[in-house]
Amino acid sequence: VFFEGSEKKLEVVVNTKSSLRELPSDFWQDIVHSSEAKILSSIENDEVQAHLLSESSLFVWDDRFVMITCGETKLIQSVHKFLEKFPKEKIASLIFQRKNEYCSHLQKTNFFSDIDSLPETFTGKAYRFGNLDTHHNFLYHLDKSYLPPSNDHTQELLMYHLGADAREIFCQKNQDKNKIRKFLKLDKYFKNWIIDDFVFDPFGYSLNAINGSNYFTIHVTPQEEASYASFETNIKLWDEHKNFGTLLLQSFSPGSFDMVSFNDYLPEKPFKNTIPIKIVKEKLSCGYNVQFKQYIRNDVLEENAILLKDRK
Amino acid sequence: VFFEGSEKKLEVVVNTKSSLRELPSDFWQDIVHSSEAKILSSIENDEVQAHLLSESSLFVWDDRFVMITCGETKLIQSVHKFLEKFPKEKIASLIFQRKNEYCSHLQKTNFFSDIDSLPETFTGKAYRFGNLDTHHNFLYHLDKSYLPPSNDHTQELLMYHLGADAREIFCQKNQDKNKIRKFLKLDKYFKNWIIDDFVFDPFGYSLNAINGSNYFTIHVTPQEEASYASFETNIKLWDEHKNFGTLLLQSFSPGSFDMVSFNDYLPEKPFKNTIPIKIVKEKLSCGYNVQFKQYIRNDVLEENAILLKDRK
Repeated sequence: VFFEGSEKKLEVVVNTKSSLRELPSDFWQDIVHSSEAKILSSIENDEVQAHLLSESSLFVWDDRFVMITCGETKLIQSVHKFLEKFPKEKIASLIFQRKNEYCSHLQKTNFFSDIDSLPETFTGKAYRFGNLDTHHNFLYHLDKSYLPPSNDHTQELLMYHLGADAREIFCQKNQDKNKIRKFLKLDKYFKNWIIDDFVFDPFGYSLNAINGSNYFTIHVTPQEEASYASFETNIKLWDEHKNFGTLLLQSFSPGSFDMVSFNDYLPEKPFKNTIPIKIVKEKLSCGYNVQFKQYIRNDVLEENAILLKDRK
Repeated sequence: VFFEGSEKKLEVVVNTKSSLRELPSDFWQDIVHSSEAKILSSIENDEVQAHLLSESSLFVWDDRFVMITCGETKLIQSVHKFLEKFPKEKIASLIFQRKNEYCSHLQKTNFFSDIDSLPETFTGKAYRFGNLDTHHNFLYHLDKSYLPPSNDHTQELLMYHLGADAREIFCQKNQDKNKIRKFLKLDKYFKNWIIDDFVFDPFGYSLNAINGSNYFTIHVTPQEEASYASFETNIKLWDEHKNFGTLLLQSFSPGSFDMVSFNDYLPEKPFKNTIPIKIVKEKLSCGYNVQFKQYIRNDVLEENAILLKDRK
């Protein structure tokens, strides 16, 4: 059965005196249910709440939240639900993304229908980073000037066509979480982080991790035909944690991958035997410098066709 | 308005004593109408009939036909219609392809629903050449052994993201056909060919050309967001007409392109400043060696994001 690993993402910053973290759990459950996902488990520290969802993750800080959903979820409905409670005036920044999908024809909505469903009064700009016929990232933002604080930077690493080692680890039925954490060397790189992870039946793995106001999240869809793993964080991945960025590419060994950065930089050569095939840069009027880079491996170009059906 | 230039293709060989060219024009109109296309004009010589369609082309020889349709056509319905008249026993070879689509979610059917709609008794194999998340080619063939004659070879050249010169020529309202033929240097390379071409309103260009049993066909969708041009032929494009292959790449200057060959070879380096990013080879049990190669230009990687909407 095909599962769409690639994600939609929503990041909202509010300017209210009360903290988003003080909202009742019903509030966030409503938001999550709107997209047709549900909360599986939650962790928190003094700065952030992290909810593991049936389809990806939700992180809530005092003044912002990040929600990521995959599969056939309708994340735009969570935007609508949020707008019922928070008028536009209280929203400092809103960014809605849809990443390149393996099977866009199986989705219940598309980026354009999502954006068109927003209220007329909601002024905004929609962009596409990358070409329509290959990897790309759709991005919509509220058209309101915003000055992100200096520690507001995000890295996304979206990996397609995972290598055999990663697929073997993640395609093991009832895989032990500890084996996965060991494979990802989390004990080595992220001591003192609170970690919450989930192994899905029959396949799939999700992980949320927090430390102070920092977070990272990993989601893996290992099925061979459309294998996918994503990593997202607000740590300085390619500065302080450069080795971890490289380790991720080494562990997952993707046939192709995209890097997306918000107010941060992207390395020239993140991994051996890979070449960039698209580089897109845009300075958004909402205060973020966004970069999108698509890479492919150039050491494994030749293959046989994939036999999809054999009706005898 | 978005128009899907990328094509579906059907090639059928029959073993009957009577010629397919002797079938009444109603027969072929029925076949064409089934896919929701229509015949615009026709040319013929002693060996082949060539029909220009509202969405692409149909070529009919004594023992075979090739039908290519783009847009939102349902070419699989033409297969059904043909099977009403020609039982499986009279079909020597049948190959149905769907090329990489810019917007698969806008299509009325997909490759899997197409194949699943065929009768249970119709044994066949379905393949995918290339990855799902970038350029690929779906191919289904009747599982029946067939020995193609030595002159049965096909070249497809599928060009995406056309260069500015080509877009300018083809985006000119009511463009003069002769200017297009001159741009393509057809007078130089294809003297003595019968040519039939059509300029669509507001955009789009189709051309059929025949000479003896040889054909080539060109279809151009020049709109910037999803520009596309295809060339298909049974001439030895990269042997005897190597310069024309190169000229096509020079004229259309695509950002990326795919080459597909049936029982023929593909050049290593068809054009300067391009690199292969995928090479797929498969020997089909129905007698054809198929190769698929995806190329990109590597001299223009950097760009800005595309502004899709700006709601103020």
